[in-house]
Amino acid sequence: MLDEIIKKNRSYRRFAQVNIDCSTFNEILALLRYIPSARNAQPLKYIASCNKQINEQIFSTLKWAGYLTDWDGPAPSERPSAYIVILQDKNISNDNYVLTDAGIALQTILLKSVELGLGGCTIAAIDKPKLASILNITQNLEILYVIALGKPAETIEIVDATVDIKYFRKNNIHYVPKRSLSELVYAIIE
Amino acid sequence: MLDEIIKKNRSYRRFAQVNIDCSTFNEILALLRYIPSARNAQPLKYIASCNKQINEQIFSTLKWAGYLTDWDGPAPSERPSAYIVILQDKNISNDNYVLTDAGIALQTILLKSVELGLGGCTIAAIDKPKLASILNITQNLEILYVIALGKPAETIEIVDATVDIKYFRKNNIHYVPKRSLSELVYAIIE
Repeated sequence: MLDEIIKKNRSYRRFAQVNIDCSTFNEILALLRYIPSARNAQPLKYIASCNKQINEQIFSTLKWAGYLTDWDGPAPSERPSAYIVILQDKNISNDNYVLTDAGIALQTILLKSVELGLGGCTIAAIDKPKLASILNITQNLEILYVIALGKPAETIEIVDATVDIKYFRKNNIHYVPKRSLSELVYAIIE
Repeated sequence: MLDEIIKKNRSYRRFAQVNIDCSTFNEILALLRYIPSARNAQPLKYIASCNKQINEQIFSTLKWAGYLTDWDGPAPSERPSAYIVILQDKNISNDNYVLTDAGIALQTILLKSVELGLGGCTIAAIDKPKLASILNITQNLEILYVIALGKPAETIEIVDATVDIKYFRKNNIHYVPKRSLSELVYAIIE
């Protein structure tokens, strides 16, 4: 079951414009209390938005799909239904472990989204001062990542990576070259 | 179903000494090809060990449970059955996104372990030069984390964090103070 969710969890960047109750996203947030955190510090905080006006403002701070140089991100008819912003509370932690905590959080958010029939994409290319102003956050909070969420409306296929790992589109299908398992696994000591 | 796995995934540090087939751990590794990676770079590599002698050597490089100052880590009768070491291939990526990739990987490894009836703990306090020598890794690989895995043999309970987030033990139960959801969720914009 988990295997299926992990494999289905691709970086979706185009979404159907369907109504999703905002409480759905609360189901995702509720899990974030239960994830591991380095030294149990729990320095991450979260902002979720399902508000159309705020979503448009958040959208205006994001750069999508760096490798697709001829694509400016999803058109108005393809945009996410919600965003979850991952923030670092610098009053709690200031070291690099926060970035690992963020990885744990974002994978948890994305896997739960897939289980709910949704999907999303983590974005790091953010106009952070602009977004901080839109979200009206206090000085101790630093924006780490924005996760776009919605009902996916694109086909993504994994292909074997040869030399290049840059994702690409062809006939409207999004292809992602993934390294082979034998490249990832350096050794198994039995 | 995923909720149950996420909640059951605690940082287990004491394990039953039962025979686990090493191929079980291959089921976990097989999933790592399908996880997200910043810019799809996929800079992580993995070493798994289910070998008792090598496991003892890996154990000798680890510091366990920083907050439990009167505990030196699991006794010989409580030690893990396997380890997965997460490595950064510096020939592929040298930036801090690798630490987020590692968080994605370790959460995936731990959730799958729980689904398999196992459990584990991520350890960052590692004698890295010693472990690099034990594992005989090439210069381009940097050790990021070691995940200890096995059949958990301890009771872990979550309690509400008040001021202190340090985990502690009482009557052999391991208690983990977790911040409230209302502390983690800065805002929900509906």
